[in-house]
Amino acid sequence: MTTDPTPSPVTFRTARRDDLARVVELIADDAIAARRTGELGDEHHAAFAAIDADPNNELVVADVGGEVVGVMQLTFVPGISRRGATRLLVEAVRVDSRLRGQGIGRAMMAWAHERGRERGASLAQLTSDKAREDAHRFYRSLGYAQSHEGFKLPL
Amino acid sequence: MTTDPTPSPVTFRTARRDDLARVVELIADDAIAARRTGELGDEHHAAFAAIDADPNNELVVADVGGEVVGVMQLTFVPGISRRGATRLLVEAVRVDSRLRGQGIGRAMMAWAHERGRERGASLAQLTSDKAREDAHRFYRSLGYAQSHEGFKLPL
Repeated sequence: MTTDPTPSPVTFRTARRDDLARVVELIADDAIAARRTGELGDEHHAAFAAIDADPNNELVVADVGGEVVGVMQLTFVPGISRRGATRLLVEAVRVDSRLRGQGIGRAMMAWAHERGRERGASLAQLTSDKAREDAHRFYRSLGYAQSHEGFKLPL
Repeated sequence: MTTDPTPSPVTFRTARRDDLARVVELIADDAIAARRTGELGDEHHAAFAAIDADPNNELVVADVGGEVVGVMQLTFVPGISRRGATRLLVEAVRVDSRLRGQGIGRAMMAWAHERGRERGASLAQLTSDKAREDAHRFYRSLGYAQSHEGFKLPL
């Protein structure tokens, strides 16, 4: 009478420095991102310190049974547009590729939106590489409007 | 023997509180943005204070002959992706509609990129409503890759 084991719940917390190697691994585990993320190095440590020191940035990890299975960065941006709306920017959203399709990404985004509301943001925004069509479907399924073009320029 | 007067040079500075009414006017002077920006109110003052207090946000105005003719918001976002790159986010870029086509927008963006480099950003990014095709042409002409889809969700 055994059934599938109940999956462990996903919990969320701010990333610690000892999560950084795993976070870099998650961010790089992707055909599009691998070439530009690299292996854990000094520049990632410096970036972690900058995020950690900035009250408007939160690097959040998703934990299942003690293992980090996802990561995302939340940035709160005050602005004049839209009647002085604070925006929640969501960047670097990644779920362990072995665990996709289990609702972890959906749980992460729900948590991000709740955190955004808690901090007074009235708009969430994100961009996604034009090649990531699965991600686009996913964001549309969460109610996001695919209303903008995203531009990038190396400085 | 008179010729066209030489146009006054564009100068840039951080917005002051007494620029706010003009900034809101510029942001709202646009068919797409007017309905969602509104008239100057308390919420804009609160947003101005939040931007002013955050070292990673700069509200910048373009001044020609003592008149504010453009505005943009620069946000510096530390991140783990792309080898720990700091990103320069450019939002709410507006030029006085009577003065378009005179290179003011181009001067603003050049200034933004220089400021980004000064602060260690290695990537500039922005999004633009899919309806703003002139803006898309403009950003592509500056070298931006139109590589991403932009998503927004009210919270």
